[in-house]
Amino acid sequence: MKSTSRERLLEATATLTYQDGVNVGVDALCKAAGVSKRSMYQLFESKDDLLAATLKERTAPFVATLLPPAADGRSPRERILHVFEQLESQAGAPAFRGCRYLAVQIELKDQNHPASQAAHRIKAKLTSFFRAEAERGGANDPGLLARQLSLVFDGAVARAGVEAENLAGLIAPTVGVLLDSAGVR
Amino acid sequence: MKSTSRERLLEATATLTYQDGVNVGVDALCKAAGVSKRSMYQLFESKDDLLAATLKERTAPFVATLLPPAADGRSPRERILHVFEQLESQAGAPAFRGCRYLAVQIELKDQNHPASQAAHRIKAKLTSFFRAEAERGGANDPGLLARQLSLVFDGAVARAGVEAENLAGLIAPTVGVLLDSAGVR
Repeated sequence: MKSTSRERLLEATATLTYQDGVNVGVDALCKAAGVSKRSMYQLFESKDDLLAATLKERTAPFVATLLPPAADGRSPRERILHVFEQLESQAGAPAFRGCRYLAVQIELKDQNHPASQAAHRIKAKLTSFFRAEAERGGANDPGLLARQLSLVFDGAVARAGVEAENLAGLIAPTVGVLLDSAGVR
Repeated sequence: MKSTSRERLLEATATLTYQDGVNVGVDALCKAAGVSKRSMYQLFESKDDLLAATLKERTAPFVATLLPPAADGRSPRERILHVFEQLESQAGAPAFRGCRYLAVQIELKDQNHPASQAAHRIKAKLTSFFRAEAERGGANDPGLLARQLSLVFDGAVARAGVEAENLAGLIAPTVGVLLDSAGVR
């Protein structure tokens, strides 16, 4: 099946911004997608919109590769640990450069930018997942545990993304200590 | 005392890259510093060198504002908590945009870049501090505790820097749980 111009632009933008950052030019994005600038501006109002749409488009795979399926029969503790096992596995890939959502927010330095706002909403899904599982697992302070797990998640992707860490032997014990402390057995 | 061209370039680069990112152009840096491009290239081989020199120049204030003075009479636990109290206080400032070293590494996406390598070395000082205090405090696994504290540090600066967190009520309990678990009382 032939992909549409829109799909190719989203794919090229996802690939190039992850590799090179949000400052990749419109010319390079259009060239990589095989789409004219005229067509691009018919599909997206601006590069900012293209960037935000690219992040939104990646929400489903982001959720699917990190979060466990709903009601998979495992305990809240196991379901939370699943996220960090997935992260550790993803961080081991040579092309891993951290979390695209965190990177976009750090690079844009403008939390009102449509792409920053899209990134913020997508990352909030992860914190919501942690909070729901923390509640189901009887955490003594589910809100605090969700914030702690989000902190560990972003610290892990940031440090692995810049090759300051390889995460092996680090994530599971750290998350384990926080779950124990919160009473999620 | 009149500042030198070199000092003004380092100051302008520190300010502008922290606000706007590493892609700020040489023209903008020279203009903000009031230095000609010719002079800049007499002082620094390239923009990459200027960027790396700026990060190195900031090492002393980075260490001084985060780490406690040597042998200040406090316990290892208190000295480690001091770093996170300082971080929480810095993160409360309106101009706070996270850790300039982490940001540079995420933005450049090239860990062989001289500025990435400078950033890496400077951040390693923080992990070394954690490790030394963990050892002094009798941590059951000082290496693991130092990695955990570095993870929490980078997660905290990243999330506070993109306004996903305000850190209040989060950092002290998280670090406390990790110190307790490591046996650092």
